[in-house]
Amino acid sequence: MQASTLARDATATVRATAPGPAMRQLIRDLFPICRSITGDGVRDTLARIGREIPIQVHEVPSGTPVLDWQVPREWNIRDAWIKNSAGERVVDFRAHNLHVVNYSVPVRGRVSRDELQRHLHSLPAHPDWIPYRTSYYAEEWGFCVTERQREALTEPDYDVCIDSEFRDGSLTYGECLVAGATDHEVLVSAHVCHPSLANDNLSGIAVATELAKYVAARPRRYSYRFLFAPGTIGAITWLAQHEARASTIAHGLVLAGVAGPGGLTYKRSRRGNAIIDCTMGFVLRQSGAEYAVQDFSPYGHDERQYCSPGFDLPVGCLMGAPWGTYPEYHTSADSIEFVSDAALSGALRACTEAVEVLEGDGLYLNLKPKGEPQLGRRGLYRTLGGPDAADAQLAMLWILNYSDGRHRLLDIAEKAAMSFGSIRRAADALIAAGLLVECAAPPAGQPSRAAGRTREVI
Amino acid sequence: MQASTLARDATATVRATAPGPAMRQLIRDLFPICRSITGDGVRDTLARIGREIPIQVHEVPSGTPVLDWQVPREWNIRDAWIKNSAGERVVDFRAHNLHVVNYSVPVRGRVSRDELQRHLHSLPAHPDWIPYRTSYYAEEWGFCVTERQREALTEPDYDVCIDSEFRDGSLTYGECLVAGATDHEVLVSAHVCHPSLANDNLSGIAVATELAKYVAARPRRYSYRFLFAPGTIGAITWLAQHEARASTIAHGLVLAGVAGPGGLTYKRSRRGNAIIDCTMGFVLRQSGAEYAVQDFSPYGHDERQYCSPGFDLPVGCLMGAPWGTYPEYHTSADSIEFVSDAALSGALRACTEAVEVLEGDGLYLNLKPKGEPQLGRRGLYRTLGGPDAADAQLAMLWILNYSDGRHRLLDIAEKAAMSFGSIRRAADALIAAGLLVECAAPPAGQPSRAAGRTREVI
Amino acid sequence: MQASTLARDATATVRATAPGPAMRQLIRDLFPICRSITGDGVRDTLARIGREIPIQVHEVPSGTPVLDWQVPREWNIRDAWIKNSAGERVVDFRAHNLHVVNYSVPVRGRVSRDELQRHLHSLPAHPDWIPYRTSYYAEEWGFCVTERQREALTEPDYDVCIDSEFRDGSLTYGECLVAGATDHEVLVSAHVCHPSLANDNLSGIAVATELAKYVAARPRRYSYRFLFAPGTIGAITWLAQHEARASTIAHGLVLAGVAGPGGLTYKRSRRGNAIIDCTMGFVLRQSGAEYAVQDFSPYGHDERQYCSPGFDLPVGCLMGAPWGTYPEYHTSADSIEFVSDAALSGALRACTEAVEVLEGDGLYLNLKPKGEPQLGRRGLYRTLGGPDAADAQLAMLWILNYSDGRHRLLDIAEKAAMSFGSIRRAADALIAAGLLVECAAPPAGQPSRAAGRTREVI
Repeated sequence: MQASTLARDATATVRATAPGPAMRQLIRDLFPICRSITGDGVRDTLARIGREIPIQVHEVPSGTPVLDWQVPREWNIRDAWIKNSAGERVVDFRAHNLHVVNYSVPVRGRVSRDELQRHLHSLPAHPDWIPYRTSYYAEEWGFCVTERQREALTEPDYDVCIDSEFRDGSLTYGECLVAGATDHEVLVSAHVCHPSLANDNLSGIAVATELAKYVAARPRRYSYRFLFAPGTIGAITWLAQHEARASTIAHGLVLAGVAGPGGLTYKRSRRGNAIIDCTMGFVLRQSGAEYAVQDFSPYGHDERQYCSPGFDLPVGCLMGAPWGTYPEYHTSADSIEFVSDAALSGALRACTEAVEVLEGDGLYLNLKPKGEPQLGRRGLYRTLGGPDAADAQLAMLWILNYSDGRHRLLDIAEKAAMSFGSIRRAADALIAAGLLVECAAPPAGQPSRAAGRTREVI
Repeated sequence: MQASTLARDATATVRATAPGPAMRQLIRDLFPICRSITGDGVRDTLARIGREIPIQVHEVPSGTPVLDWQVPREWNIRDAWIKNSAGERVVDFRAHNLHVVNYSVPVRGRVSRDELQRHLHSLPAHPDWIPYRTSYYAEEWGFCVTERQREALTEPDYDVCIDSEFRDGSLTYGECLVAGATDHEVLVSAHVCHPSLANDNLSGIAVATELAKYVAARPRRYSYRFLFAPGTIGAITWLAQHEARASTIAHGLVLAGVAGPGGLTYKRSRRGNAIIDCTMGFVLRQSGAEYAVQDFSPYGHDERQYCSPGFDLPVGCLMGAPWGTYPEYHTSADSIEFVSDAALSGALRACTEAVEVLEGDGLYLNLKPKGEPQLGRRGLYRTLGGPDAADAQLAMLWILNYSDGRHRLLDIAEKAAMSFGSIRRAADALIAAGLLVECAAPPAGQPSRAAGRTREVI
Repeated sequence: MQASTLARDATATVRATAPGPAMRQLIRDLFPICRSITGDGVRDTLARIGREIPIQVHEVPSGTPVLDWQVPREWNIRDAWIKNSAGERVVDFRAHNLHVVNYSVPVRGRVSRDELQRHLHSLPAHPDWIPYRTSYYAEEWGFCVTERQREALTEPDYDVCIDSEFRDGSLTYGECLVAGATDHEVLVSAHVCHPSLANDNLSGIAVATELAKYVAARPRRYSYRFLFAPGTIGAITWLAQHEARASTIAHGLVLAGVAGPGGLTYKRSRRGNAIIDCTMGFVLRQSGAEYAVQDFSPYGHDERQYCSPGFDLPVGCLMGAPWGTYPEYHTSADSIEFVSDAALSGALRACTEAVEVLEGDGLYLNLKPKGEPQLGRRGLYRTLGGPDAADAQLAMLWILNYSDGRHRLLDIAEKAAMSFGSIRRAADALIAAGLLVECAAPPAGQPSRAAGRTREVI
């Protein structure tokens, strides 16, 4: 795969920066771009991400059949406005790109106030906010305005212009593959189709970008594929082009609106008990922060596509407050200020800790399963007995007892209610002492940890 | 089967009436009849039901071996009384048929007050109520009286008469088979052996009768067998005569005391997770009314027999307050007034909604399982995107995602927490659009919905 | 097996005594003995137990390989003290045997106060208590003192003496096998290595001893093995010597600190749902007393060894308050007074009731599974019907319905929420009536109850 080759080399050049300011700056830079499911907005977005991590850009021509869909015509927009009789722009695309219904057909002319009203969208409950509306698959045009703007439209008719254009172009998506010791992949997917909305989904893009840097800087068994694609049609296009490859996805995470209000919410994959589901539940539970875990439902973000029954991939979704549950969702109130540094950092931390678990997890066998092995003569036990057993010893006992080929380290950490790090370190001590060995045949899609250890990493 | 043939024709003539007044009138007409497990009371009861729906009456001769039992001698009673020295009836069967212990042997003569006391049953805690007692399988005689009547028996001796008769006759039960597109049956069973007790079980008889009219008036895949038989021995007799046939019972419901105080109670079949169990739980949960669901226990009503381990049929029991939990149970206080129209209608509604689920349920396959199919170009999606997804679309997404041959529509309605009707309508739209198809091989005992659709129904 | 033969005869001579005073006296007699994992303390302890029940004593030579361990050198101690400049014993082994770190190497000489401090252990939070410390597998010496004793050590140096001795001797453990109708065993294990600590574990020793008398005096299917062995190394030694035999252990119970504060705590076997787990949960639930049930964890008492993954025996642990959860744990405050008669009796009762369940439990088949069998004509049913069904009949109905070869009597007692005795008596009545028969092939390790019934018992 070309994508893979490029990324393998390219990740070596990943810059090490403090993730907080880098995420903030990326969001600031991406915010003004008018994205859509196709067009230059996506290209500009990928170019900016490409200044952080190596991105391979793919262009899929309009009309290409993708699963049950086909790639739509490419849409671009230059300008749009509603002008009053004085020729003043009372609604101006240049002021906020949410003002135009995304994928509006071009229009230019004079329309009556009544006719115009039928093409306006506003939020009476939030009179200063502009809603975000799309019309991808129907030929419509429209403006999104604040309720106050709508109320101010008192003249009998207005000049309207949407200087948009449809053409046979392509759908654009970008990938960054951080190659690991094995071809088993962790998919991290963020949608890049929303225009000036900060939480949805510049937050997901920023966290995915920093996560790519993080994994590139650590040894790894898994290869990590970061996918930046337009929502729905982008995920469908990617799946259509990687149908055979999909089965190599061992774990996956959609990052969407991760810096919204409230704590993090993890939505389980359709399988419900995939390793990524256990991992994210574990990570959030141990974070000490407020969080929620939801069962899969067939609406939401691109997990809808990854978890469609014909793929049924082990892909969950990490969000802040779930879509549609906070008033700022899909409005101009989802501004740069709406996203806090703390929320971005918390989301990134959950992701990096999940990586630690996925990389460190494995299935092991206790080589001395009859009775407890004598830890003392191997230097693994405090020499003086007493009532308080140290964490490290407890961790060893848990691992020795449950490493029967049926419990992974993550299962053991769950049972023991200990940090994954403690369990991993204890496992390493037991391996070094010859008491523990990784099971030869990991479950399908679960690369052997041993493989990861013996390989040069970038 | 003769029963089947008769009902197939006869149901065509079922009268359409308002169910509430019809149930009330049926209860009023049946109340005075002195029923028992055999005899003319059952015959008169079936004759009256037969004026509502076609009933085939079966007579099984006394002495016939039925499973571990045999059909007892037939019992009939003409009159009974206790007379004082003035020749006045101080206890009079003609005043209330509960006054005689059901299945009492005949007796006539003068007995001392002490001897008489040993044959009396009363309820000290409810001095104005007459208890209901039976002695089916032991040769006894006795009177049931109010506590006040018992206290008034101060004379040294009394004339007693129970003008009952045992003879080699038969046990009588009735069936109404409403034939459907398939031979897979839904069994609805109500006991008809209790004398003047309204809730237990004229309520069950009335609801079963109206339910028969309801199913006869709708298209149906299943055949519905309504069984009106004496408790225990009637169910045992029916099972003995239909041992081979029992396996065609796909779902079943015992209706017993359905109009008692409090909300409805559903008692699960022995299997615990039969489709009827899921269906009744779903229906009651969505009813908005107070309700309870119990696990199976091997006492109660005729589910004891249907769920004996040698049959283990998927038959649950719908009740109001469970037997024995309300003071009026098996006393003269279980009068016509004790049964409310609202309770009767609520019970009937639960049954008709269960029929809707059973008929509408099925196992389907999404024909476009990779990614979401594009609903828009099939006219199944709103053209303008936005935050609020309509119920119909949600229902389609749930069905498409879970129609993998392992989830029935009822399972999907449960997961989606949506009404069964919404799910069913969405499934029909998806079928019409060629996106969904019924699984070819339904689970054993689960007739294909497709079969029901292509057949003329009465 | 020699052990078996001896016990088979010997149990005939078991004395019947009131368990309460006998347990109390045994604890009083055993308390002063300075036990350790090897040495004369264990021998003296077994000798005293042997005055209650027949004990076969095993000596395993130092150096014998046992699983991953080897039997350590034997340790004995004659005397120990710290003397001040006046030659007075300020810390005296003769006053309390906890004063010496168990398994201390011998030491004799004058040490500075600073040097001495490094070898002292005390409990600042409990200034009058002596802690219990051991140093089995590291060559150390030390004294355990009260905080007040430590504070009083103000002189610049002290004479210290630990007159202990290591030699190639043996590890000692004792067994009492109470033979039953079958070779399937119930293992009851109590550790005997702790010196003057009453709850931990003279309470376990005392209850095990009385339980041996109890089972010897009742008919039994199972053979009962009572194992009195030092903690960890004793259990490991026993397992090493009985590796093949371990699979005959059908159920097992570690008794450890059973008379501690609070109610009884049962810790499940590693399997989590072994019959002993169900049994103990049932017994404690029905006891009416406060109790707790814990999942298995790989630390605690000798269940750690029995439940190591290479054995994974169905052995749970009965405790009072779990080890380490009460301040007196492993201190001189775990004195004879700390153990109450009520707690000892409660623990013994839980054990004897568990024996009743294990002995009475079994898998049965209803021979008349189609419909309910007619209990009346077999004299098993009240002749007069009525609302209150007697417990005995209810028990019969539960047994008949669930005796399908998949539910044991204990399962049925759980479902019915009835006492095991009621269920067992009802089963006996059904067997006598020819309605119930024990399943021919019990699950592995589950001896047929029938076998136990036909055998002469001691």
